[in-house]
Amino acid sequence: ARRGYPEAVYGEGKTPEQLRVIARSYASRGSTDSPVIFTRCDEERAAAVLVELPDAVHQPQARLVVWPADPPEPTGGLVAVLTAGTSDLPVALEAETTARYLGRRTELVVDVGVAGLHRVLGRLDLLRAARAIVVAAGMDGALPTVVAGLVAAPVIAVPTSVGYGAAFGGVAPLLTMLNACAPGVAVVNIDNGYGAGHLAAQIAAPPVDG
Amino acid sequence: ARRGYPEAVYGEGKTPEQLRVIARSYASRGSTDSPVIFTRCDEERAAAVLVELPDAVHQPQARLVVWPADPPEPTGGLVAVLTAGTSDLPVALEAETTARYLGRRTELVVDVGVAGLHRVLGRLDLLRAARAIVVAAGMDGALPTVVAGLVAAPVIAVPTSVGYGAAFGGVAPLLTMLNACAPGVAVVNIDNGYGAGHLAAQIAAPPVDG
Amino acid sequence: ARRGYPEAVYGEGKTPEQLRVIARSYASRGSTDSPVIFTRCDEERAAAVLVELPDAVHQPQARLVVWPADPPEPTGGLVAVLTAGTSDLPVALEAETTARYLGRRTELVVDVGVAGLHRVLGRLDLLRAARAIVVAAGMDGALPTVVAGLVAAPVIAVPTSVGYGAAFGGVAPLLTMLNACAPGVAVVNIDNGYGAGHLAAQIAAPPVDG
Amino acid sequence: ARRGYPEAVYGEGKTPEQLRVIARSYASRGSTDSPVIFTRCDEERAAAVLVELPDAVHQPQARLVVWPADPPEPTGGLVAVLTAGTSDLPVALEAETTARYLGRRTELVVDVGVAGLHRVLGRLDLLRAARAIVVAAGMDGALPTVVAGLVAAPVIAVPTSVGYGAAFGGVAPLLTMLNACAPGVAVVNIDNGYGAGHLAAQIAAPPVDG
Amino acid sequence: ARRGYPEAVYGEGKTPEQLRVIARSYASRGSTDSPVIFTRCDEERAAAVLVELPDAVHQPQARLVVWPADPPEPTGGLVAVLTAGTSDLPVALEAETTARYLGRRTELVVDVGVAGLHRVLGRLDLLRAARAIVVAAGMDGALPTVVAGLVAAPVIAVPTSVGYGAAFGGVAPLLTMLNACAPGVAVVNIDNGYGAGHLAAQIAAPPVDG
Amino acid sequence: ARRGYPEAVYGEGKTPEQLRVIARSYASRGSTDSPVIFTRCDEERAAAVLVELPDAVHQPQARLVVWPADPPEPTGGLVAVLTAGTSDLPVALEAETTARYLGRRTELVVDVGVAGLHRVLGRLDLLRAARAIVVAAGMDGALPTVVAGLVAAPVIAVPTSVGYGAAFGGVAPLLTMLNACAPGVAVVNIDNGYGAGHLAAQIAAPPVDG
Amino acid sequence: ARRGYPEAVYGEGKTPEQLRVIARSYASRGSTDSPVIFTRCDEERAAAVLVELPDAVHQPQARLVVWPADPPEPTGGLVAVLTAGTSDLPVALEAETTARYLGRRTELVVDVGVAGLHRVLGRLDLLRAARAIVVAAGMDGALPTVVAGLVAAPVIAVPTSVGYGAAFGGVAPLLTMLNACAPGVAVVNIDNGYGAGHLAAQIAAPPVDG
Amino acid sequence: ARRGYPEAVYGEGKTPEQLRVIARSYASRGSTDSPVIFTRCDEERAAAVLVELPDAVHQPQARLVVWPADPPEPTGGLVAVLTAGTSDLPVALEAETTARYLGRRTELVVDVGVAGLHRVLGRLDLLRAARAIVVAAGMDGALPTVVAGLVAAPVIAVPTSVGYGAAFGGVAPLLTMLNACAPGVAVVNIDNGYGAGHLAAQIAAPPVDG
Ligand SMILES: Nc1ncnc2c1ncn2[C@@H]1O[C@H](COP(=O)(O)O)[C@@H](O)[C@H]1O
Ligand SMILES: Nc1ncnc2c1ncn2[C@@H]1O[C@H](COP(=O)(O)O)[C@@H](O)[C@H]1O
Ligand SMILES: Nc1ncnc2c1ncn2[C@@H]1O[C@H](COP(=O)(O)O)[C@@H](O)[C@H]1O
Ligand SMILES: Nc1ncnc2c1ncn2[C@@H]1O[C@H](COP(=O)(O)O)[C@@H](O)[C@H]1O
Ligand SMILES: [Mg+2]
Ligand SMILES: [Mg+2]
Ligand SMILES: [Mg+2]
Ligand SMILES: [Mg+2]
Ligand SMILES: [Mg+2]
Ligand SMILES: [Mg+2]
Ligand SMILES: [Mg+2]
Ligand SMILES: [Mg+2]
Repeated sequence: ARRGYPEAVYGEGKTPEQLRVIARSYASRGSTDSPVIFTRCDEERAAAVLVELPDAVHQPQARLVVWPADPPEPTGGLVAVLTAGTSDLPVALEAETTARYLGRRTELVVDVGVAGLHRVLGRLDLLRAARAIVVAAGMDGALPTVVAGLVAAPVIAVPTSVGYGAAFGGVAPLLTMLNACAPGVAVVNIDNGYGAGHLAAQIAAPPVDG
Repeated sequence: ARRGYPEAVYGEGKTPEQLRVIARSYASRGSTDSPVIFTRCDEERAAAVLVELPDAVHQPQARLVVWPADPPEPTGGLVAVLTAGTSDLPVALEAETTARYLGRRTELVVDVGVAGLHRVLGRLDLLRAARAIVVAAGMDGALPTVVAGLVAAPVIAVPTSVGYGAAFGGVAPLLTMLNACAPGVAVVNIDNGYGAGHLAAQIAAPPVDG
Repeated sequence: ARRGYPEAVYGEGKTPEQLRVIARSYASRGSTDSPVIFTRCDEERAAAVLVELPDAVHQPQARLVVWPADPPEPTGGLVAVLTAGTSDLPVALEAETTARYLGRRTELVVDVGVAGLHRVLGRLDLLRAARAIVVAAGMDGALPTVVAGLVAAPVIAVPTSVGYGAAFGGVAPLLTMLNACAPGVAVVNIDNGYGAGHLAAQIAAPPVDG
Repeated sequence: ARRGYPEAVYGEGKTPEQLRVIARSYASRGSTDSPVIFTRCDEERAAAVLVELPDAVHQPQARLVVWPADPPEPTGGLVAVLTAGTSDLPVALEAETTARYLGRRTELVVDVGVAGLHRVLGRLDLLRAARAIVVAAGMDGALPTVVAGLVAAPVIAVPTSVGYGAAFGGVAPLLTMLNACAPGVAVVNIDNGYGAGHLAAQIAAPPVDG
Repeated sequence: ARRGYPEAVYGEGKTPEQLRVIARSYASRGSTDSPVIFTRCDEERAAAVLVELPDAVHQPQARLVVWPADPPEPTGGLVAVLTAGTSDLPVALEAETTARYLGRRTELVVDVGVAGLHRVLGRLDLLRAARAIVVAAGMDGALPTVVAGLVAAPVIAVPTSVGYGAAFGGVAPLLTMLNACAPGVAVVNIDNGYGAGHLAAQIAAPPVDG
Repeated sequence: ARRGYPEAVYGEGKTPEQLRVIARSYASRGSTDSPVIFTRCDEERAAAVLVELPDAVHQPQARLVVWPADPPEPTGGLVAVLTAGTSDLPVALEAETTARYLGRRTELVVDVGVAGLHRVLGRLDLLRAARAIVVAAGMDGALPTVVAGLVAAPVIAVPTSVGYGAAFGGVAPLLTMLNACAPGVAVVNIDNGYGAGHLAAQIAAPPVDG
Repeated sequence: ARRGYPEAVYGEGKTPEQLRVIARSYASRGSTDSPVIFTRCDEERAAAVLVELPDAVHQPQARLVVWPADPPEPTGGLVAVLTAGTSDLPVALEAETTARYLGRRTELVVDVGVAGLHRVLGRLDLLRAARAIVVAAGMDGALPTVVAGLVAAPVIAVPTSVGYGAAFGGVAPLLTMLNACAPGVAVVNIDNGYGAGHLAAQIAAPPVDG
Repeated sequence: ARRGYPEAVYGEGKTPEQLRVIARSYASRGSTDSPVIFTRCDEERAAAVLVELPDAVHQPQARLVVWPADPPEPTGGLVAVLTAGTSDLPVALEAETTARYLGRRTELVVDVGVAGLHRVLGRLDLLRAARAIVVAAGMDGALPTVVAGLVAAPVIAVPTSVGYGAAFGGVAPLLTMLNACAPGVAVVNIDNGYGAGHLAAQIAAPPVDG
């Protein structure tokens, strides 16, 4: 594992056969301390991995396969993962699962978009307990600014490709987030739940000598 | 006046000489019921208009010259004009002045951006009393969605060219507003305070038989 | 219903199963005063909703499912819905149906694009009777400016993704509409018939004390 | 002159010194049948040309210098040049002057934008007498479609960089024109009055054996 | 027929059923002097039209259905239609067929792109005989400039969506053509063979009193 | 101070007069525990602030004015700030100063771009000692990926508007950074040194109970 | 063969039938000194070519068919082809095969992206032995700059459409490469392995009198 | 000198003071075998360099300062540098000077754009004698394709920001060049004469053992 974190294999650009070969090489290493995460695996790619690593966990909504099945015992701070709408759930799950397998405690809060402010205001206690907060939002992408204005922890904003027309496949929320009026907003690529979860886990990592 | 509304002269694309000729033609008509609004007039252009219409009102921050000086007696509903930041003020003033000279009561509320939610939540009474609300915001452009989620009246969102980098001269808030998660958000061109104020005045107009 | 208007469920980002769960929760509430609108439902999603709300109305061209079946008794002003071409019809129907279920009288006028001016000029009486006018247009998106120049009511312009090449999926008419030379044009997202109809219904709403 | 048409020298990309050298080479040729057109010459560049060709005509609004001073005797059909607004005048003058020095009869019609349809409808007789029509328009760029729907002659649409915000320096009208709903619309580059006038003169040229 | 030219029905935005209804209305008018052109008809749409107008001509590569089958007797000047590559053929055929059914003589020249200059130089006689030249080109879109530098007639440039990567679906050749260094280039929308053929037919039309 | 961090005043969108009024209000509060940061102040704006807060520190290269002059005693982890080239220095200084006044120890490393890998590899010890690393880079923006591949701490990537042509004012490095092949890269707006320094200070903050 | 290099037929824009006709014409020429390369041939198109040229070589991953089967005896310098990730392999193979059939020795090095610098640094000997180096990279496209900083030979950078979101189908690495901080980077179109291999073969060609 | 080539200092992003410090450090090294090139130096920056290196050569049109004054004795092949128009000259001179100071023989050919094909065809002998050809072109950028179709040597295409409107500061010719229909075209950044000259010098370098 590079730099102490689990390795990740990007499934989208690979054939099922290529993924199977990679999975077999992990299987042949036997037991491991650090998990491997196969990202962006559709059903066919996930199946190819599971042939070689039958005890891996497949999270179909998040398009992840993780091996071995059990995440490490959590250390460090809490990672909260929020979504503005229901449609942002797959990206949020990718982030949440990634952070968990990188060794953090996680909490998921769904559908607290700013069109109904009471929803996010009702979860202030949880938000203020977190060491890092991932916010997945499409369309207007306004939620990260509002959250960053309410907490002292860093907010990792993930634009999602949810929406249509002038959402331009996630460009609209990407720009909103890059221009967030509250400081403390870190942006990752559109739909990059894996990157958001990884960053959150790094931020919430325990002190090196802790 | 077309369709019962004051005429507008777009100053930016005209030379001071051209504007003076137009102003003179209004002056020669003598007294009038309906005002004329010269928009986007810098100091030089405003001066050219004032030579011919010395009793006109010059609003330099809003780059407007209006004649005659007194707005009509207000009718219809209240138009509220909000800004997310201080830098959105010129556009907001252009909207507010336009709506006032189109015959509406207006209220201006400055610097209530979503990074500090208490600011906009503290003005809920005013917002709920309005028949139309103009919201001028640059950078992340998140304020119109939040306001539209709090009121039943239409919200007219004006993206401003405030900001830098990936704000792209107002494109970022323009896209945010077009993708507003709350319904009831009408969008106009970047920095188009005149258009926003006009639309608000039309929406808040008294019933035709009233 | 938020702020006195029907709730809307955005179908596109949800699985049929998720929609069915939502529909069931409405069914379990029993009779209701205010309708719920499921937007952007393809055949499969509409079917999932209808399993739980069998008496809902399915408008396939507009991709809407509305429940309960009968719109409220209309109040307020007339909402006119225009299209430039035949291909803009689905978006126009989404707007018209939304406005009707929000309690307005509506009229639909199809195929009156500016390449044949006599078509729109022949409907001036209807246009001038409306309190709000929705105009759906793709390709050059020129119709809203022309209509706004002919009436005193606000025009809500909906760019559609009809066209090819440099239409860029609706960007061309979107820009045309944002730059409309006549004031009084409110723009919504590309293909956002729901938002246009909602805005029209708000604008044409009866006075609060009326 | 290439292919029977006057030569053009693009002034913008050249230093005044370079232009003076070019002008001198024309002066040294002595009398000529075919004019030379220096385009996009600001005051400084025009002065440099006039030093060597003192009898040339300088059209400052159109940024043109033409030599010799007298256009050829007109042949072929009429070229009409229209503008949507006053601010499109410089581009229209560049087109009109170019067509005239290429040997056509020309007519200029200013400020007939579609926000007030009566203006363009009031000039139908002129429009229908033309063999080619140049239409210069900024902001929403809707005028060429309307004109093309009214006449049988080709319409040459020139988007102008008039406007602000989402006009994007002429991109908005450029896209409008490329997507014109009426056939018969030829588009040239933003602010390219020279190209539009040249094309119009070619289209309205007399039959080769005539 | 509007303005003396055949009517056109845009097939892409219509259902086969809508097209069949339109076709039937033409069938019921009986014989006609002026043809109708159904553009952008895939197999299914073409079949729907042919059910009602069985004697119509179907040009599948150009995606056109034209009725009645015989083009008018040609008048006016020659229209030449060129392609840079083989892949531009469908768009070129759409242009050529349109011009022919609008009453012009036409010639088609395929695969004369500028990467092998001898190909276009070998057809100079034909090019110089034409009254209007349509040039369809994708990728670098360089052919229209070269052709316009060789002839005195107007060149109508049609960018095609042939190519990949930074061709951006035809944007690259569109920009090349708008910036053509030779004057006399008229641009139409990407893949708009119909518009190019129509414009060419208008330009090459016989003199009105001829 | 919101959420425990210093307040910031965005200078660019304000007149010198507006800034002076704001500065005076801080001066009138007397001594303070938490600094205020005036960002994006050119010479004129900085002077206006200094009139009211004469003991403030002006950092002209970073366009910052900070008051009071002394940063707080540092706590938490080390913040390293890197630049790819010399031209990225102003943005890096803005980040470094911000982090320091938010209470962190900082180190600045200039001109270690990837075109000469030995430069960044020679600073590995420092990089691995940091709790958060800010990387400012323009043009190709490749440095953050390389750094993130070498360390376990989060990397905050700031694209700068250095460069020309297809750098598009910072868009090129912005996209590079959003697509970083190494996980652990957080992106902020183009030239947003303030935001990067703020985020770094939050990430490197001492544990809450520490 | 034009200019001494093999001919290429662009398969994507042609029907299988058109390709078969072209293949047959090559077959009828009999033996040949210079190969022909059919690019961007999917299974169906490749099959059509192979019917007429059964002894051609089909490279499905690179989507190439080459005839005759044996590449020429290599001359000139070495062409090295690198990929940043596994997903860039098809484009790299297209480049490598093209260079080989144009008569160069080639070496392929896969998966040496900059997120793990040791990978590319481990191949320095090979890189420094090459006369031209093709580097295929998607996402952040950072590898070509790093390589160009390590060698004296020209680097041909091919952006690939690997990635998602703000990779924009290869635009992100395209911009990165155009802005490469190290000189000596030549850029070709996104996914244009054919063009990259051709250019490399030209650069590594033997001296003309050699 | 890195990798055997002269060092370059990018002037645009540095203050005159910073440049002077750098120049002084070169001066203090005394005589040198390999030159240093200061690129993009306006008058003020060039003067700062010349204070410390008074015997350096200043090429104002190319915005270059080179030291020491004499280029190395030329080796390797000929580098030809072409421009489409006169306005491309500064970029061409930057390329030509760079290649010369990197040790190549160079030839400059100005104003041979494709709108007049005879101009480039008249220089075929020179073009075919070159080992590498730099082509600088703005507006439509068609010249590199035409040249690449005429020669066997690699063509390095430099888009220039000459032009207006839809030239988009050089984006139009950049896209044309990336989509060149002839193989053998290497593209560099807009206005990047330095990079083009460097690449040409590398390609035309003498064989390593030569
Ligand atoms: N600031 C503005 N933004 C957009 N449109 C405007 C503005 N000012 C005036 N207009 C419109 O432009 C028209 C006048 O244009 P003109 O005749 O060129 O002065 C008016 O009828 C307005 O509708
Ligand atoms: N077709 C639509 N376009 C834009 N917004 C919509 C649409 N349908 C529903 N919405 C909005 O999305 C919200 C519901 O989102 P959700 O909770 O994800 O179903 C509603 O409150 C509407 O404001
Ligand atoms: N304003 C203009 N816009 C576009 N093209 C122009 C313009 N003026 C001149 N040209 C073209 O540029 C060519 C002359 O370029 P040059 O040799 O650089 O002066 C002429 O042949 C014209 O076709
Ligand atoms: N994959 C490719 N990408 C870019 N250009 C290509 C490709 N394959 C072939 N070409 C070019 O296209 C020309 C052949 O085009 P065509 O005559 O349409 O088959 C060749 O001369 C090549 O220069
Ligand atoms: Mg919801
Ligand atoms: Mg504030
Ligand atoms: Mg119609
Ligand atoms: Mg006007
Ligand atoms: Mg070919
Ligand atoms: Mg350096
Ligand atoms: Mg890898
Ligand atoms: Mg020239």
